[in-house]
Amino acid sequence: MSEKPIVKSADSFPADVVGAGTGTTRQVLISDQDAPNFALRRFIMEPGGGMPKHTNSVEHEQYILRGSASVGIADEIFKVTAGDAVYIPQGVPHWYDADAEEGFEFLCIVPNKEDVIQLCDNGC
Amino acid sequence: MSEKPIVKSADSFPADVVGAGTGTTRQVLISDQDAPNFALRRFIMEPGGGMPKHTNSVEHEQYILRGSASVGIADEIFKVTAGDAVYIPQGVPHWYDADAEEGFEFLCIVPNKEDVIQLCDNGC
Repeated sequence: MSEKPIVKSADSFPADVVGAGTGTTRQVLISDQDAPNFALRRFIMEPGGGMPKHTNSVEHEQYILRGSASVGIADEIFKVTAGDAVYIPQGVPHWYDADAEEGFEFLCIVPNKEDVIQLCDNGC
Repeated sequence: MSEKPIVKSADSFPADVVGAGTGTTRQVLISDQDAPNFALRRFIMEPGGGMPKHTNSVEHEQYILRGSASVGIADEIFKVTAGDAVYIPQGVPHWYDADAEEGFEFLCIVPNKEDVIQLCDNGC
């Protein structure tokens, strides 16, 4: 565990393709190796990109940076846009459908715990 | 502890004045009552606002949303701007001096632990 301060432009972090998504990349800005309790990640979805319905074994705290999306959480669908805060409790099925014109960019903070991801193709 | 999803515009949250700061307000977007492990807050500093040198007993993970500032962390001074990620380990002295024209706005995530704040007026 490093306990050094970090100051770094998010644009300088590598972007990894999120395999289960469409047109979606993820940057780990502050990792579970950098800090003791939680990790800060930035997701960028191209226009029309997204993630299919899935569950995570850890909760998500999110903040929308740019663009907009339809986000399904449990049985509700929300239209979210820049400046919105989103909390998805652990185990709750959710999905993302980025706006076809603007795309969608958001921060997602997760605890430093194992994250088991389950796609809901056959139900959740 | 609520385990309900939250989707809410950050602009709809009350802004509390941060007493130790100058021209600084704080919004708790996802609180320690909403989520089990960490809290998501948004700080807004008016042009020329800021926070004097202090320590916290908990770490900070931050993301700059708008504007710029000089931020002192330990013995270094950083010029930070929108899109930067910042990690301040627990106990490390730090301060903020928001840009005189633009002001400064950032997210700050902290663990759900007691946060003892100590001003460094007489050293830290």
